[in-house]
Amino acid sequence: MKTAYSDPALHGLAAILLRDSCGCAECRDFGSGQRLGSITDLPADVSVIETRAAGNSVVVIFGPDGHRGVFSRAWLAEQNSPPEDDRTEDAKRLWAASDVAACLPEQSWACYLTDDGHRERCLAALLRDGFFLLRDAPCRPGTVLTVAASMSYVRETNYGRLFDVRVEATPANLALTGLPIAPHTDNPYRDPVPTVQLLHCLAAAVQGGDSGLVDGFMAAALLRAQNPAAFEILTRTPVTFAYSDATADLRATRPMIGVDPDGRIREIRFNHRSMQPLRRGREGSAEQTAAFYSAYRAFAEMVARPDLMLTFRLGPGDCVVFDNTRILHARTGFAAAGERHLQGCYADLDGVASTLAVLRRTRRATR
Amino acid sequence: MKTAYSDPALHGLAAILLRDSCGCAECRDFGSGQRLGSITDLPADVSVIETRAAGNSVVVIFGPDGHRGVFSRAWLAEQNSPPEDDRTEDAKRLWAASDVAACLPEQSWACYLTDDGHRERCLAALLRDGFFLLRDAPCRPGTVLTVAASMSYVRETNYGRLFDVRVEATPANLALTGLPIAPHTDNPYRDPVPTVQLLHCLAAAVQGGDSGLVDGFMAAALLRAQNPAAFEILTRTPVTFAYSDATADLRATRPMIGVDPDGRIREIRFNHRSMQPLRRGREGSAEQTAAFYSAYRAFAEMVARPDLMLTFRLGPGDCVVFDNTRILHARTGFAAAGERHLQGCYADLDGVASTLAVLRRTRRATR
Repeated sequence: MKTAYSDPALHGLAAILLRDSCGCAECRDFGSGQRLGSITDLPADVSVIETRAAGNSVVVIFGPDGHRGVFSRAWLAEQNSPPEDDRTEDAKRLWAASDVAACLPEQSWACYLTDDGHRERCLAALLRDGFFLLRDAPCRPGTVLTVAASMSYVRETNYGRLFDVRVEATPANLALTGLPIAPHTDNPYRDPVPTVQLLHCLAAAVQGGDSGLVDGFMAAALLRAQNPAAFEILTRTPVTFAYSDATADLRATRPMIGVDPDGRIREIRFNHRSMQPLRRGREGSAEQTAAFYSAYRAFAEMVARPDLMLTFRLGPGDCVVFDNTRILHARTGFAAAGERHLQGCYADLDGVASTLAVLRRTRRATR
Repeated sequence: MKTAYSDPALHGLAAILLRDSCGCAECRDFGSGQRLGSITDLPADVSVIETRAAGNSVVVIFGPDGHRGVFSRAWLAEQNSPPEDDRTEDAKRLWAASDVAACLPEQSWACYLTDDGHRERCLAALLRDGFFLLRDAPCRPGTVLTVAASMSYVRETNYGRLFDVRVEATPANLALTGLPIAPHTDNPYRDPVPTVQLLHCLAAAVQGGDSGLVDGFMAAALLRAQNPAAFEILTRTPVTFAYSDATADLRATRPMIGVDPDGRIREIRFNHRSMQPLRRGREGSAEQTAAFYSAYRAFAEMVARPDLMLTFRLGPGDCVVFDNTRILHARTGFAAAGERHLQGCYADLDGVASTLAVLRRTRRATR
């Protein structure tokens, strides 16, 4: 046996990390692979006292209790990778309209359904680019739920499992009129906010009603580059969003730009229709409030930049699927007398990532 | 008319906040009350040029465009309140076991169903104390879904709309054995994590299988008081949680203690079974990793303090409902040969808060 840490594969790895990761039958349940004990069951003064190379593995003897663990070199090498949060900007491909317009992430429903490779590319686009388009899905009410179920689980809300987007006589929401709708994320008044939205077209407007998408991570990254003070204010200021009708009364309070502990962009909430006036409490001043609104205006101007908005038209049967924590969606106005009819529903990104991971695992195994 | 800001009701309120909040027919849709324009439609150099008292309202003339808005004094007074995030520690009643054991937030299913006042108190307890108990709900499979639907919407996952907790021959999870389970939050490998969990008892163990709840906000607040450096590390370090079986492959990366931009405790993720080894990347050192594990150990010791754990026994028909972003749940071991059988499901807090708000609104209106 060599002395502690003499094997370079262990460099940079804390003894407690190794001890807590031990996979022996005493430490892990054989069937589930889950830890049997808690961190409090391990000695606080754990150390590596001896190591021995054993083929593609390293045997480690821990002090003070002499516990023995075996770690593969592949696993040890992985442990020096950075944290693997796939939801921050680092895991995304940020885009302006011209970056994606020529080569939209899109697929026919028939190919998506029958070919795992096509489905894998669509789901990967949703996670990396924030959206994809399905063409020619069945033009029947309820199809949007079938599309959602193909990749994740439907998030039911007070709007139902699905909701209709068409002109209503007494709209509780401007989406239910023929008015143009500026880029926004949906339901920022929910916490947890639905992380995926699907919109399926059953009937298009004769004229107008075109769809627009803006990459909110790109808009936030541009704001950070051009106006770092405004970016900082929007990441630090909790904003309340609210929605109320006869059967619901929803409120959530979160910053417009959510970041991880290292400051990476992770979540956008942007909706001027449901945003509430900023409250700072007694400690806040009118100047601070004005600074917030200036920052908000700067972000709104960025979001409204024509070069950021990808525009396209949903024909009957088409379905757009997007990351509602990142992509802002919009539509142009249309004649209220028309027959434009979309059905929408919500789902969640964790389910999409799981479906994609299982798909990749299965395809690797059968190759 | 008086000159700008001469009315004390406007003190501390920025002109842009007032202008953006204007409720006139030009600014808001009459039916939905939603804003018709965006912040970018308002003049950047907005100012208050005149104010006039008008009964319980204040008329404001804005510069530079002469726009006229009317604000009630009640609304103006509200705007100096602090931000209203009901999910942070400030909106909660933190507890140790002895604070709640003598007077559990509990109600019979019959009273909960038929009396709005009882239902209101149960839902208020869930938001304030993090849990409540329903006694004597029907002892039939599926009842847990009825309970969930009475307050929110079921969050379907890869485990189904509901899941069974009983001893299985080939458990994918230690919950499906007779082993004791230490305090934890469920599904930290999901993002968004389910924010409410329900567990309904169909059959109890003859001996053992008792339930325990720990207020994770209390444990985190105690950690902050006794070991602020450890608290800080746990709020700043992203940790990956993972779960994988034949049909799912879930991962999420978030700090164990989530805080809002002002540092208030907002969300706990704690589960040693699904926690992955810490990755710091090339910039991280073994010393930093060891410091994280020390902080994690300190929090685990706090969570394990006997005076923090409320213990009780679920009898057949009983259902416990708790905030899965705050309350850690546990159970004692039991004989694997027994018939203990729970059914669980997930739901979300935003729906609970909405149901409670509508209930209060309705009760106020009919008083």
